[in-house]
Amino acid sequence: MGELATLFRPERVAVVGATDREGSVGRAITANLLADFDGAVVAVNPTKDEVLGLQCHDAVGDVPDVDVAVVVVPPAIVLDVIRDAGRNGIQNVVVITAGFGESGSEGASRERELRAVADEYDLNVVGPNSLGIMNTALELNATFGPENAQPGSISFMSQSGAFVTAVVDWANDRNLGFHNVVSLGNKAVLDESDFVREWGDDPETDVILGYLEDVVDGREFVRAAREVTRDTPVVVVKSGRTEAGASAAASHTGAIAGSERAYEAALDQAGVLRVESVQDLFDFGSILAGQPIPDGDGVAIVTNAGGPGVMTTDAVGDSDLSLASFTDETIDTFREELPDEANVYNPVDIIGDAPVERFADALDVALADPNVDAAVVLACPTAPLSFEELADAVVDMSDEYGTPIAATLMGGSSTREANETLSAAGIPTYFDPARAVRSLDALREYRTISRREYTEPETFDVDRETAQEILERAARRDTNRLGVEAMGLLDAYGIPTPASGIVDGRTEAVRAAERVGDGDPVVMKIVSPDILHKSDIGGVAVGVPPDEVGDTYEDLVTRARNYQPDATILGVQVQEMLDMDDAVETIVGTNRDPQFGPLVLFGLGGIFVEILEDATFRVAPVSEPSAHEMIGEIDAAPLLRGARGRDPVDESDIVETIQRLSQLVIDFPAIVELDVNPLVARPDGVAAVDVRLTIDQEEL
Amino acid sequence: MGELATLFRPERVAVVGATDREGSVGRAITANLLADFDGAVVAVNPTKDEVLGLQCHDAVGDVPDVDVAVVVVPPAIVLDVIRDAGRNGIQNVVVITAGFGESGSEGASRERELRAVADEYDLNVVGPNSLGIMNTALELNATFGPENAQPGSISFMSQSGAFVTAVVDWANDRNLGFHNVVSLGNKAVLDESDFVREWGDDPETDVILGYLEDVVDGREFVRAAREVTRDTPVVVVKSGRTEAGASAAASHTGAIAGSERAYEAALDQAGVLRVESVQDLFDFGSILAGQPIPDGDGVAIVTNAGGPGVMTTDAVGDSDLSLASFTDETIDTFREELPDEANVYNPVDIIGDAPVERFADALDVALADPNVDAAVVLACPTAPLSFEELADAVVDMSDEYGTPIAATLMGGSSTREANETLSAAGIPTYFDPARAVRSLDALREYRTISRREYTEPETFDVDRETAQEILERAARRDTNRLGVEAMGLLDAYGIPTPASGIVDGRTEAVRAAERVGDGDPVVMKIVSPDILHKSDIGGVAVGVPPDEVGDTYEDLVTRARNYQPDATILGVQVQEMLDMDDAVETIVGTNRDPQFGPLVLFGLGGIFVEILEDATFRVAPVSEPSAHEMIGEIDAAPLLRGARGRDPVDESDIVETIQRLSQLVIDFPAIVELDVNPLVARPDGVAAVDVRLTIDQEEL
Repeated sequence: MGELATLFRPERVAVVGATDREGSVGRAITANLLADFDGAVVAVNPTKDEVLGLQCHDAVGDVPDVDVAVVVVPPAIVLDVIRDAGRNGIQNVVVITAGFGESGSEGASRERELRAVADEYDLNVVGPNSLGIMNTALELNATFGPENAQPGSISFMSQSGAFVTAVVDWANDRNLGFHNVVSLGNKAVLDESDFVREWGDDPETDVILGYLEDVVDGREFVRAAREVTRDTPVVVVKSGRTEAGASAAASHTGAIAGSERAYEAALDQAGVLRVESVQDLFDFGSILAGQPIPDGDGVAIVTNAGGPGVMTTDAVGDSDLSLASFTDETIDTFREELPDEANVYNPVDIIGDAPVERFADALDVALADPNVDAAVVLACPTAPLSFEELADAVVDMSDEYGTPIAATLMGGSSTREANETLSAAGIPTYFDPARAVRSLDALREYRTISRREYTEPETFDVDRETAQEILERAARRDTNRLGVEAMGLLDAYGIPTPASGIVDGRTEAVRAAERVGDGDPVVMKIVSPDILHKSDIGGVAVGVPPDEVGDTYEDLVTRARNYQPDATILGVQVQEMLDMDDAVETIVGTNRDPQFGPLVLFGLGGIFVEILEDATFRVAPVSEPSAHEMIGEIDAAPLLRGARGRDPVDESDIVETIQRLSQLVIDFPAIVELDVNPLVARPDGVAAVDVRLTIDQEEL
Repeated sequence: MGELATLFRPERVAVVGATDREGSVGRAITANLLADFDGAVVAVNPTKDEVLGLQCHDAVGDVPDVDVAVVVVPPAIVLDVIRDAGRNGIQNVVVITAGFGESGSEGASRERELRAVADEYDLNVVGPNSLGIMNTALELNATFGPENAQPGSISFMSQSGAFVTAVVDWANDRNLGFHNVVSLGNKAVLDESDFVREWGDDPETDVILGYLEDVVDGREFVRAAREVTRDTPVVVVKSGRTEAGASAAASHTGAIAGSERAYEAALDQAGVLRVESVQDLFDFGSILAGQPIPDGDGVAIVTNAGGPGVMTTDAVGDSDLSLASFTDETIDTFREELPDEANVYNPVDIIGDAPVERFADALDVALADPNVDAAVVLACPTAPLSFEELADAVVDMSDEYGTPIAATLMGGSSTREANETLSAAGIPTYFDPARAVRSLDALREYRTISRREYTEPETFDVDRETAQEILERAARRDTNRLGVEAMGLLDAYGIPTPASGIVDGRTEAVRAAERVGDGDPVVMKIVSPDILHKSDIGGVAVGVPPDEVGDTYEDLVTRARNYQPDATILGVQVQEMLDMDDAVETIVGTNRDPQFGPLVLFGLGGIFVEILEDATFRVAPVSEPSAHEMIGEIDAAPLLRGARGRDPVDESDIVETIQRLSQLVIDFPAIVELDVNPLVARPDGVAAVDVRLTIDQEEL
């Protein structure tokens, strides 16, 4: 157990604001605690002598040895109560009271003060605006919900209190148990990262489930979850995924919408299994709590019904699992043991007249096959088959082989008892075989997470001073937008750029062209922080022969002046012209997310990112393997890898550019946005041809 | 009712092979019929005097006035029984017996004979290898399944008998009823198209559901379903979608795998709602049977719980529905009536202390809003709320407004009675709000289907004789592969091609270049059915100036001879060189699907179809609106529509090309495959630059 051990394992809980008023929250909590809790309950209420048979104390400051204070007093006196608790040495406070950050500016300032008090006394505070907490191991129900949870190995946190009551009611009906349950409330002090860490250290928690509308400290959450998810699966619904949902979340809890793409990247990097529906949350949670992790991806389907077997096979095809190929020995055994009409290949169809013995034998043979890593038992109701007996047989096989199994008993009331037997043994059961396969696929996904190697991001030897100087120079010009005049930033961070120079005179232009072009044609671009779309105003000239460089210089400057007389013109960039044979234009960019900090993008240039939205993201810093993965994740990756008879580009140079850019934006919080577009990738390396960035001068 | 009226509404049913042997199929069917059926049951079995209290007849040919004969005799005598039935004037036969097409060559030939007998006597035959049929309106259960279905307005066909027993068992547990149920078996005579037509004409069937592993006659099914789905929704799981699934389906029922893309296109063109899971099949079926079709896409969410409200909003964001924008009047009313803490915008959060009255009032206000086309009622368990009372209120509102509603009562046993009330009123209920929204989205999808205008494909005035002549010329050369030498096919069908000529001498080449190039450079290509990748061997020259045409001719021929000395060289094509400014390369192609006939593809050329698989398909013939839709369906469509500052191409010319090509492949079954690649699309029209086709000479 971690730092929150006494929060979840108190010996003595005080209810501050305990009352016996019918329908009140204070009564509900006191009654829930009295009903089951293994420890002592203390009532605090200066206006009462006794509540539900408990003698009432006037103040929580007067009561000795309280481990957790549950606070249900009116908002105006919550802070006094907490101070009192703090002075009395109480470490854990659960604030049920609402009227804080979720309700206007007065509430928000009250919440800030609460945070300060918690800091002062080093308190663990749950809430405010929480339904409370549960620990089934002690039968602790410090919530005002209508039901206590049943014991289990899933710990569950929710940013919605109503969702907690709903889930507990629903789960009790399905014999699905929990270890700890927390209604996070406004997360003024303790947030998702704290509970992920706590439950990651808790041997009684096998799976962590969460319903979240935001993440308070994105980078801290990634750190915490990354560590925990090596051993303990974390499954999360992060709502507000869609534009409509995000705005609903904002009005619900005031959750600041970090970008969805940041959440997507961050939760993935953190090893969190992200799901989109309540059904998946509990399907995945249940199987992760009940079944072992498979060693491989091969699934055996054993069924008494061909059609549903085909549907199940489709579901395997939709997943990242595969149909196990049986060994010859397995097939021979099936041929011997099964009727002629049976299908001895996977999916194994033992046909409709199969009694339970045939089912058990077939499952036995399938599970013994070394290519079988998981199994779906799929049964339709038939006269010779008893679902109850089948359930017992499946539980026996599960015990014998330790191979993950999901069951699909396709029937209604006839399956009830069998489903209970299977659920009690941790084997999930469904009517729809697609759900069984999805659940097994969640085990596979968790296997890959638990086996991930997290490589530390590399730190390259860079010229940080020069970069600082370039940014400061821009700041001195009092601009937030930089263009090619900041190519030096890339040079300073070791990102290859074509030979170039910025000039502010005709003669210099000609000299620069000689230097960078070496007699070949060059590219020339107007340099101005005020002109965003240089091509549109004729501010770019490509393939300028040496003898036209001077005139082109004049042209570019004249056009820019005509187009925007008040624009600051820093000069003209004269750049080496790259050989574009076998070259692919890519984009590497970054922007800053309010929750997760700098986010790095990779994609192909032109239409690919801009129209097809074929891009991938990571929260910085990006490690080498992670940058490699990014390249493989875009749909257009084959274009980099030698599609259509071209030479493949040098991927390792792209990978290094991603890493170096990630280092740059981590080093300089002043860089709000930065795009290298295009980063030209060729078989012999990369070159950053253009750059554009926005800075925040206050961060310099 | 249609042609199958007496199959489903018999007055007298004979069981041929009736028996009282325990555990036998013959006994099960006889007992099922005797249990409930409103009509008369006759037993036929020459070896018995009496079966389950019925006097036994020796032969079905002896029994007068039989409407349906259910056949459960051994396979070897099935055909004799059917002939006997046919001679006796019996119109409908349900063949339960297995051992036909699904079991080896003997069975397959028996099935062919069955088809011939059915033809001879004009019989409606269900099966063979069928579980039987049901019609709950007469309590007719002519199956050997363990349970009879409950009455309802869904008619259900299944290519898996086991799936029928599973579904009936499961549905009975959920009070989900059916009108007719058919286990299709091997579909030797009656198939999915027949039942779709029949149920489309049946006023007692509101929704048609199907589980299919293949479609017997693809084009007939599209015709039948297209007509029926204007008034009656058809929802289908077509399994064998994935490679693994298709091979499992083949081994299960011998279903020939038509291509998945053909099924996808065809089911869509037929107006079938295709689903991928059993859960969706019945979720969609239930709501389509129980709720009206919404007029628009605006959904109101009314909830007592903010968090689940956000999740529901996300689900709306995932769907093609939208959150309804309330009118000012609605918002003002909510402001007046709801507590201060409530959210008066959509999703409406009436907060946790809401009693049923507040829920009902809020729903009333929301449903009265003209922008609200559908509603989700979303409730978490709270002390002041009774789910039962809420259910009653929702049913009342549903009656009053006739607006489609889906309910999400988030709890376990506490929701049971309320769920029953809602289900009985046709209002679907779920624990997971995402399912409620998906179901409403199915109503929306069906609305668009039912309002579709099916435009007849246009028939263009073409030169069919020339096309025939070109194909025959190729056949005379004894080749199945044609290239640019078949450009005349496109000309004959009015598809624009660049000016070109095929020449077989240097002088002719120069003359042709003068004619097609008019002094400008031309494109030259070797013409040979044996050389597939002309560019790879240097068989294409682009931008050949007039004075180099002669030499280039020699070069191309020499290269081709060196590369493949035995290749038939038909000459060199000299083609006008197109101005590629603002041009986009597209592909229009076709191939022939075993189930659905010619399929037409459209996509962008180069990497788009080949690497990104960004293509769309239609079963031919393709109508004008359908060809228009195809363009909009590809991800890269913005490139045709003026992305990145280009002029948009002429879409109507692409549309016409798709239609004309569709006409060509319908007219000539000999064309197995044909690709126009590239079809260059420009602001001023299209031009087919290259063509490649494969023909089947036997079809000429």
